[in-house]
Amino acid sequence: MSKKFHTVAIVGKLDGSGVAGPLAVLQTFLAKRGIRIQMDERTAKLAARQPDIAAPLNQVFAGADLAIALGGDGTLLGIARKVADANVPLVGINLGTLGFLTDIAADSTESVLGEMLDGAYTTEPRLLLEGSVVREGKPIFSTVALNDVVVCRGAMGSMIEFAVEVNGEFVYSLRADGLIISTPTGSTAYALSSGGPILHPSLPAISLVPISPHTLSNRPVAIPSTSEVRVRLLRGQNARVNFDVQSFFDPDTDDVVVVRAHPNPLTLLHPNGHSYYAMLRSKLHWAERNS
Amino acid sequence: MSKKFHTVAIVGKLDGSGVAGPLAVLQTFLAKRGIRIQMDERTAKLAARQPDIAAPLNQVFAGADLAIALGGDGTLLGIARKVADANVPLVGINLGTLGFLTDIAADSTESVLGEMLDGAYTTEPRLLLEGSVVREGKPIFSTVALNDVVVCRGAMGSMIEFAVEVNGEFVYSLRADGLIISTPTGSTAYALSSGGPILHPSLPAISLVPISPHTLSNRPVAIPSTSEVRVRLLRGQNARVNFDVQSFFDPDTDDVVVVRAHPNPLTLLHPNGHSYYAMLRSKLHWAERNS
Amino acid sequence: MSKKFHTVAIVGKLDGSGVAGPLAVLQTFLAKRGIRIQMDERTAKLAARQPDIAAPLNQVFAGADLAIALGGDGTLLGIARKVADANVPLVGINLGTLGFLTDIAADSTESVLGEMLDGAYTTEPRLLLEGSVVREGKPIFSTVALNDVVVCRGAMGSMIEFAVEVNGEFVYSLRADGLIISTPTGSTAYALSSGGPILHPSLPAISLVPISPHTLSNRPVAIPSTSEVRVRLLRGQNARVNFDVQSFFDPDTDDVVVVRAHPNPLTLLHPNGHSYYAMLRSKLHWAERNS
Amino acid sequence: MSKKFHTVAIVGKLDGSGVAGPLAVLQTFLAKRGIRIQMDERTAKLAARQPDIAAPLNQVFAGADLAIALGGDGTLLGIARKVADANVPLVGINLGTLGFLTDIAADSTESVLGEMLDGAYTTEPRLLLEGSVVREGKPIFSTVALNDVVVCRGAMGSMIEFAVEVNGEFVYSLRADGLIISTPTGSTAYALSSGGPILHPSLPAISLVPISPHTLSNRPVAIPSTSEVRVRLLRGQNARVNFDVQSFFDPDTDDVVVVRAHPNPLTLLHPNGHSYYAMLRSKLHWAERNS
Repeated sequence: MSKKFHTVAIVGKLDGSGVAGPLAVLQTFLAKRGIRIQMDERTAKLAARQPDIAAPLNQVFAGADLAIALGGDGTLLGIARKVADANVPLVGINLGTLGFLTDIAADSTESVLGEMLDGAYTTEPRLLLEGSVVREGKPIFSTVALNDVVVCRGAMGSMIEFAVEVNGEFVYSLRADGLIISTPTGSTAYALSSGGPILHPSLPAISLVPISPHTLSNRPVAIPSTSEVRVRLLRGQNARVNFDVQSFFDPDTDDVVVVRAHPNPLTLLHPNGHSYYAMLRSKLHWAERNS
Repeated sequence: MSKKFHTVAIVGKLDGSGVAGPLAVLQTFLAKRGIRIQMDERTAKLAARQPDIAAPLNQVFAGADLAIALGGDGTLLGIARKVADANVPLVGINLGTLGFLTDIAADSTESVLGEMLDGAYTTEPRLLLEGSVVREGKPIFSTVALNDVVVCRGAMGSMIEFAVEVNGEFVYSLRADGLIISTPTGSTAYALSSGGPILHPSLPAISLVPISPHTLSNRPVAIPSTSEVRVRLLRGQNARVNFDVQSFFDPDTDDVVVVRAHPNPLTLLHPNGHSYYAMLRSKLHWAERNS
Repeated sequence: MSKKFHTVAIVGKLDGSGVAGPLAVLQTFLAKRGIRIQMDERTAKLAARQPDIAAPLNQVFAGADLAIALGGDGTLLGIARKVADANVPLVGINLGTLGFLTDIAADSTESVLGEMLDGAYTTEPRLLLEGSVVREGKPIFSTVALNDVVVCRGAMGSMIEFAVEVNGEFVYSLRADGLIISTPTGSTAYALSSGGPILHPSLPAISLVPISPHTLSNRPVAIPSTSEVRVRLLRGQNARVNFDVQSFFDPDTDDVVVVRAHPNPLTLLHPNGHSYYAMLRSKLHWAERNS
Repeated sequence: MSKKFHTVAIVGKLDGSGVAGPLAVLQTFLAKRGIRIQMDERTAKLAARQPDIAAPLNQVFAGADLAIALGGDGTLLGIARKVADANVPLVGINLGTLGFLTDIAADSTESVLGEMLDGAYTTEPRLLLEGSVVREGKPIFSTVALNDVVVCRGAMGSMIEFAVEVNGEFVYSLRADGLIISTPTGSTAYALSSGGPILHPSLPAISLVPISPHTLSNRPVAIPSTSEVRVRLLRGQNARVNFDVQSFFDPDTDDVVVVRAHPNPLTLLHPNGHSYYAMLRSKLHWAERNS
């Protein structure tokens, strides 16, 4: 737990609002510790003092041994894939109310992050999903998601119809608004709103959560994360696949969306004492009384 | 209950599949009874023998004292508004498995419809909704729905945000996939898939059913059908309003969707002995045992 | 709206905790206005100054033209039937956090109640249910409920099985933990926890909400409040009927629980400006933003 | 997969109804193959021909290398613990409609079981739970469950209140009808009726499913099966713990129900070609169309 961090890559909230102040504080704080700072070019424009390296978002994590998302859960979600591929651990600093993923408040950056840089942290691997769209046997689109891969109706408002297979075995066909294929991380996001269960991040599971299913008994199913899920569009005019609501693809009838675990998980760092359940209680307004 | 029917308007399933045979049977059957037959032009093309009058769909119900939808629930849904405006009672004949609305099987047309034409029927009024989109105080779109008015996200996949008012009073604001404003008729359709209650058709109620709401406690609410519901888009890029999944409008932020009861209900005719609960048991696979 | 109140009956929280102080304040306040005070004997023991009349709970509302429940929703629930039978309007003062029914905070008693006594109030009728248990054609138990009549499994933990009829028509049979027959008032209580819809208090409706039903498609149904509901126990060893969780009866197999609207509604008084939806937002933690 | 079975222990449905015929067929079939037969004493009374050994239920699995439950899911559930402790694999033969667990139809016993005895079967381990009630630090009751451990209200009908800890960490406190702690096997039983997710049997998970929770956001949570769950009664007058609805204990306030995985799983045998998803489709009336 005593790993030293020499180079930190910082990525700020996409729209930049409210980032400048906390970014300046963070820069000063890291500089005092002699830590080298990298930023993506967009974030660098908001910086009071130029970072050691400003790079395109694609390259900013190269050579870093820690990544910091400065924004909210959306900011962290937007860089999860790149951070995982660079095999860099990630910390989220939240500019507003704490998120499900960004669990350090901007105004406690110095104390909390300081202790983490001194080695007082825990690491938590988070499952990522690889999703691709296969047409006539060939992948024509693929990307990675931290929360979920969602196959859903497009704008026209009518249900889609699809067949689900797991590990080559037929599970069900369904008319619905769509299907959410969710990681434990995504289980507290869209999947939860659609009636899915909360999956603890350490559970090696994927949940299949139908959205407004025509068949009322088509309930959420959790399966091992080693599974391969295939969703074939049976009647998919005007369907859409989205990945973390960040990437989109419009599939045709008979296209197959294939989802499986990404080989590299994302590594989140948390301050010591971080509690997943405390975060749930806070975000979901659960009762606190324990006696 | 002994009303005589002299003129019947028939409208067939939109895509025409499977209509020709049952239509020929129906024509023969009605002709033998000396009943005058009107059809919309599309249906007339499928008719073995030409109807007394073939008219555009907009005019086909004029002068009729009974309307027959020959298809499924979708066929009936597609003409509900025009039938209500013409103040003509409506019967649904189903070409496949019985629907929630079309409760006469095509192959029992002669026996069941015969008895109805002899006066053995019950009438059931069904609430219709008037929906309009208001921009800067002026209605820019309006139509009528038998099932529901749905304000929902468009194709981009991100939640919309809206504020709901009932009779001028603020109810809640919500981030969600959308909101279903449903009649009792619609309560067994999309609203049911999204977690809404079943509303008995004789209950003067409208239900407000959130679709995948971000706030988990935002549960379906049923209000009197005399209420005026206003849904204002707070963050509505890429939103959409649909009416029975038949008419669509793409509203902007700050547009208001206004929904209230249509002054004329739709009148459905049912064979004597028709049971709403028997239909529910059949369609929803409820247990039948009664002893 | 300018009705004068001359005699007020006060009933305090059952366990008496925390009642004495607010009761003294209320007594002083009413006495200054020359209002005659009646209390049930239990509440009278907590009073600093003896009321004009102390009577058994059954008789305390006789002659009163206003009843005050001083406690929480449970206190109000416990006297609803007697207050309705005496045809006296009822106000709830809450000693803790505001309830769904008790909407005046104890510490604003003087200002808010003062205005109401001056005539600034609205009245709201609330549906009550009459429930009885019928064995071999004869009623063997009956009582009245403001929230709900619940037919449920007893302590042994196994499902019960029952058949539901509405107005003499078979609706469904079901194996479940039980069935909640709820008023609009009860729709935000146990029925809501069990997946039922919120029914606006002005909607003349009763909801039938299955508790943990074996058949997943057996969803809540709302019917007109003019309906008579009959629940017959098909396999009811160890079943129980409860009425507002205040009265209980243990029925046998083949006993029938009959529920219909009580002829007299309960009349609630609210301060002017009282908003049902604001209460829902507050109690259910709905978002407040309206722009 | 070519294991030979020499000794089979048979246990029939508790009430014995309909068992005699299929039991005689099964005996003849096994005898022809030279397989030694053991029965519990109750089942032996129903046998046309006496088994080689009739023993108390506690001892009937000793020395057997296969156990057969002849009845329904309840029959299998009733012997699961003893079978697991004896480390004998288990097959379920169903006398009525196929169950979630008993997947061989009585009338195909000879063909299907014959192939299995020839070695054409798959084995499937199923998680069992150990549950105990701890008072003042000492266990005062303990047993094993295949479906679930349920902490719930007793007969009085009022909610209980409890605090949940996982691995010593506080998760939430809740007022509810109860809490279901479910295995994957139990996830299609009571937990499903109460809104829980379906957990694939190969997922090493336990779900925590609140029953009619007062806090609407208290949704089902799935955690690793290596977790220790502790449920402490905060207000538990009239509470009850049940294990597979087969064993019961009435805990007091401050008693703690402790649940963790049993060290030995139950081993189910299935015919080759058995499909968990096909079973779900059949039992839950999911759509079958796959093209």
